[in-house]
Amino acid sequence: MLIALDAMGGDYAPTINIEGALDTVNEQNDINVILVGNEPLIRQELRGKRFDPDRLRIRHASQVIEMHDAPSAAIRKKKDSSIRIGIDLVKAGEADAFVSAGHSGVVMATSLLLLGTSQGVDRPAIATLMPTLKEPFILLDVGANVDCKPENLLQFGLMGNTYCKLVLGRSEPKVALLSIGEEDSKGNELTKEAFKLLKNTSLNFIGNVEGKDLFTGKADVILCDGFIGNIALKVSEGLAEAILKMLKQEITSGSAGRLGYLMLKPAFRNFKKRTDYDEYGGAPLLGINGASIISHGRSTSKAIKNALRVAEDFSRKRVYEAIAQAIVSTPATSPVGH
Amino acid sequence: MLIALDAMGGDYAPTINIEGALDTVNEQNDINVILVGNEPLIRQELRGKRFDPDRLRIRHASQVIEMHDAPSAAIRKKKDSSIRIGIDLVKAGEADAFVSAGHSGVVMATSLLLLGTSQGVDRPAIATLMPTLKEPFILLDVGANVDCKPENLLQFGLMGNTYCKLVLGRSEPKVALLSIGEEDSKGNELTKEAFKLLKNTSLNFIGNVEGKDLFTGKADVILCDGFIGNIALKVSEGLAEAILKMLKQEITSGSAGRLGYLMLKPAFRNFKKRTDYDEYGGAPLLGINGASIISHGRSTSKAIKNALRVAEDFSRKRVYEAIAQAIVSTPATSPVGH
Repeated sequence: MLIALDAMGGDYAPTINIEGALDTVNEQNDINVILVGNEPLIRQELRGKRFDPDRLRIRHASQVIEMHDAPSAAIRKKKDSSIRIGIDLVKAGEADAFVSAGHSGVVMATSLLLLGTSQGVDRPAIATLMPTLKEPFILLDVGANVDCKPENLLQFGLMGNTYCKLVLGRSEPKVALLSIGEEDSKGNELTKEAFKLLKNTSLNFIGNVEGKDLFTGKADVILCDGFIGNIALKVSEGLAEAILKMLKQEITSGSAGRLGYLMLKPAFRNFKKRTDYDEYGGAPLLGINGASIISHGRSTSKAIKNALRVAEDFSRKRVYEAIAQAIVSTPATSPVGH
Repeated sequence: MLIALDAMGGDYAPTINIEGALDTVNEQNDINVILVGNEPLIRQELRGKRFDPDRLRIRHASQVIEMHDAPSAAIRKKKDSSIRIGIDLVKAGEADAFVSAGHSGVVMATSLLLLGTSQGVDRPAIATLMPTLKEPFILLDVGANVDCKPENLLQFGLMGNTYCKLVLGRSEPKVALLSIGEEDSKGNELTKEAFKLLKNTSLNFIGNVEGKDLFTGKADVILCDGFIGNIALKVSEGLAEAILKMLKQEITSGSAGRLGYLMLKPAFRNFKKRTDYDEYGGAPLLGINGASIISHGRSTSKAIKNALRVAEDFSRKRVYEAIAQAIVSTPATSPVGH
């Protein structure tokens, strides 16, 4: 399996991207990597590092998409960006998957432009894994589509269900809609319509779940539009950080507290591991006809390594083909938009 | 100041509601309470308790709104409910404010029906205080209106700003829109339009904030539609609970951990106090022409006590009149909806 990695995307690029790639090829026999980006810079980072040059290659890209670039202009003007070249490699069959921690809007739009959607898919979605008190669940869409139609949420359900079965290995995923009450009468216009559509599929649709149920493990796949999903995800990240900060403040401000804190360090470490987004690494674009994986902008080398693993798994299991099959065989979803 | 309290609403009613009322009249000289609900039941709860009967009175209501009642049917059929009678007392001038931990949809709809909106207000909003690493901020709407127009978000801005000035005493509140990126080009159709409207007011509008910024104290007032607000609020509550559970699991599973946990109990207690929704107590309905305060369904007696305090403050400062003034003097908001 050969994966193209955007060496230039993310807050700590290229250093940690290259570190993640090195760790991957040195530790895992089934993943080879093409580093896409500024070749001199990449060579410099690799200097003195031990690796098999057959398994870690470089493809030069002269341009970098910056986080403040507008997607449409970036795609038009930066035709030699690491994102464009990386996705082109997948399109040409020279790589099996693409991973980037860069500008997610540009990765999304370029993937759509070059790879297109899986058959029958109206709009792709970004699917992310989130931790709960039990097993993680899949939340989608977390930012690809800010204004959705009910039919889009239905397709997100079919796509998330397929992904959950193939990648998390759950045989009959519980699929739910994120709303503001459990009854089907609760919600906004979008979710009330989507509820009716989801009820009439072969999905194991368990109805609405509320924000407070996100972390109790009630559902395997939770559906929402990309605006809500992004806010739910970011609120969670922000709050988890704030809570740890507040607790540390409280703990270290007491005298017994400081000693207690030292004793508790292992517990805090375990807790961090359980809630750490790095552990999940990559959020695949579901509905794209190929494997294109978005990694968090603040990705560490561990996150990059995990994203490469997600990409390998996604590509090997041909999730995008299974998604096309699920969409095409569900009559209500085709055609979409009327 | 005389406040009507729904004795029957909330998960632990009537016991804790009555406890909260007793504590209030026994500890605070400026608040008298009318307990509204099933009189025999209330008398039974009050048996043996010490209080001044001039300061804690009872008004009988033969019906109770249940959480599963549909608002429209409940309002039509239960004309003698504790919610209806309580708000009627405010309408008749027999009470200065109403507080309920019961069905928030019914409190909202009944307040709208009996008290109406403040002059110029199109849709009322539920405003809640949320904790941050620094000072708490006001989030609105958290559930009154699930489908909003841009003009509604503008009015929420004016209402939240007024509330923040009068009740939190901040002289020039920083007002922000909850969105998925800081630039004004980021958001969904609703927030992009609302951004333009908010920019052209005298508000200290600081632009968009993201979900991750909710708890950093960037803004004093954060605006969103009631669907998003409800989800952001519930996600926060759910995650805070889950994090504490996970941490306790991790801490008590180690041997040094158990001792450390005992030493840290004061820190955990302080932390809980800082993030405890009970501390904030009541969420006022902004835009209603009168003081109607919603308390959390899981309210404890402390939460009820704090909600009565919020009601007293809200009524004494005549926030609803100041809101009418703010709305009427901002041209773009009137008329709304076109």
